[in-house]
Amino acid sequence: MKKLINDPQDVMRESLAGFAAAHADILKVSFDPVYVVRADAPVTGQVGIISGGGSGHEPLHGGFVGKGMLDAACPGQVFTSPSPDQMEAATAAVNGGAGVLHIVKNYTGDVMNFEMAAELCQARGIEVQAVVINDDVAVQDSLYTAGRRGVGATVLAEKICGAAAARGYDLGRVAALAGRVNACARSMGMALSPCTVPAAGKPNFVLGDDEMEMGVGIHGEPGRRRMALMPAAESVAHMAEAILADLPFRAGDRVIAMLNGMGGTPLIELYLVYGELEQHLRSRQITIARRLVGNYITSLDMAGCSITLLQVDDELLSLWDAPVLTPALRWGI
Amino acid sequence: MKKLINDPQDVMRESLAGFAAAHADILKVSFDPVYVVRADAPVTGQVGIISGGGSGHEPLHGGFVGKGMLDAACPGQVFTSPSPDQMEAATAAVNGGAGVLHIVKNYTGDVMNFEMAAELCQARGIEVQAVVINDDVAVQDSLYTAGRRGVGATVLAEKICGAAAARGYDLGRVAALAGRVNACARSMGMALSPCTVPAAGKPNFVLGDDEMEMGVGIHGEPGRRRMALMPAAESVAHMAEAILADLPFRAGDRVIAMLNGMGGTPLIELYLVYGELEQHLRSRQITIARRLVGNYITSLDMAGCSITLLQVDDELLSLWDAPVLTPALRWGI
Repeated sequence: MKKLINDPQDVMRESLAGFAAAHADILKVSFDPVYVVRADAPVTGQVGIISGGGSGHEPLHGGFVGKGMLDAACPGQVFTSPSPDQMEAATAAVNGGAGVLHIVKNYTGDVMNFEMAAELCQARGIEVQAVVINDDVAVQDSLYTAGRRGVGATVLAEKICGAAAARGYDLGRVAALAGRVNACARSMGMALSPCTVPAAGKPNFVLGDDEMEMGVGIHGEPGRRRMALMPAAESVAHMAEAILADLPFRAGDRVIAMLNGMGGTPLIELYLVYGELEQHLRSRQITIARRLVGNYITSLDMAGCSITLLQVDDELLSLWDAPVLTPALRWGI
Repeated sequence: MKKLINDPQDVMRESLAGFAAAHADILKVSFDPVYVVRADAPVTGQVGIISGGGSGHEPLHGGFVGKGMLDAACPGQVFTSPSPDQMEAATAAVNGGAGVLHIVKNYTGDVMNFEMAAELCQARGIEVQAVVINDDVAVQDSLYTAGRRGVGATVLAEKICGAAAARGYDLGRVAALAGRVNACARSMGMALSPCTVPAAGKPNFVLGDDEMEMGVGIHGEPGRRRMALMPAAESVAHMAEAILADLPFRAGDRVIAMLNGMGGTPLIELYLVYGELEQHLRSRQITIARRLVGNYITSLDMAGCSITLLQVDDELLSLWDAPVLTPALRWGI
């Protein structure tokens, strides 16, 4: 294993220490229990939004904490769910009196722990609603998931709900929006290489020199099929068709598209893939109204990418365009 | 070779096609000859700023084209200098009547071709000045360079000069600023892995499982020393000490720090390394006034990082903080 780390056991905390030092203008990090929180939390009278999950998917979730997006994020150890006490403390820290939304990716540990945290918070008199994101069309059930996995739509839900909270939507409306984003978004990913969890010290699966994993999960979970390496245009067509057929998306749809890198794939390739995606969608009369191209929900050093498409209307676009100031997404401020 | 590409010969052009589609609000791409240019170029009465070099270092340089930074960028094939006709066309496209600055990384082909382009432009009546960036302290002379290589300081010079041009500085002052950034900045990098040029199809050097290349160049050029893999804290101390001793930086200095990823190293590691850097500089009574942490000047899929430090005063900080709207750097707009 070759990584820029010290002791593999300390990666999450040491990375958070650097993250806190780099972004002190936007956020603070609590280390006991561990959570990342907006520097100005709680915002009185505004719905709080938190998310969380295992580390190793940076910038998700901590990189999306700040004005107009998440109020707090709870990072677990690498690929390990955070604990209910982290979620409870983060919820209390962002509660401005209007309740708190938990945005939860569908992994068994995350769902269970967020449920427990919500109960603890409600017992303390904090109103909590939770929305589970399960946008990955690749497989039904998986290594750590009953049902479908939650992946890229989480980023879009965090942005859109954060904007809605900043506009003064109440908890019910913000939660409904998260549900709507989840209902209207679909994702699929692929890997050219495995990734290496620091504490494990070796790659988490094996791929041949001429193979790729189509439909891979963000922890290296098996996808739909181990396939022969193919040109980018074919990989994109494969993922896009699976996504389009699932919702289904239709000619005339407008979408927000996220072309996401898994962490080890350079930008020159991601833009090439984005070009293929745009062409493919144009051939299906689908218009990309907004897009993200880059590393947003990663799998450590895995090479590969994922595509997320969200069917949008003017309300969702307006919330997408609203100002945001976080380490990883920033515009309008 | 496992990459998200189609034909290895088409990578640069296909990636640019996706890049143009993704950022049509900010820039346009000309394909004959190839250059990336601000959507609103030329800006009348304002100094134009262009840069360029081989592809494979994304987001450098195209990702820094936009308001408040570069007016145009000329990408060559991967790790190959762009040609004088690209530079001439880009210079003409951004000339708003106040002259054009060429920011050139110190690689023999880039320097030669930018010199030729400057002559062609001057013959057309366009005033051109050029500044060569050579901030890499690792080695004197290198595989493609006489003298020192130009690396991370290029990003800082592009931002600071772009802000100065937007404020109405004349060509002489903008060029002097670029020279000052180069004089006050130093960088060094290291690699945990080689990178693979698509047209070559195999890694461009070999590193043992327990080795790293300290002082590596952004094309995989040899550094100072092949060293045994060490903890991040020691790698940082090694790079930071080489940088600090070279200028030299002194106790009491304020700096802009860039902790740059080489392309294949995930953000969780980069933040950990940034934390080590901040601690190290604090122990030397040097204050990081501003910072970038992420992939800014990469080497395809190379794993590793580089550190750039720029000694700043209030003028440089004010120019750094000025609004910028590019694909890769965006604030204040």
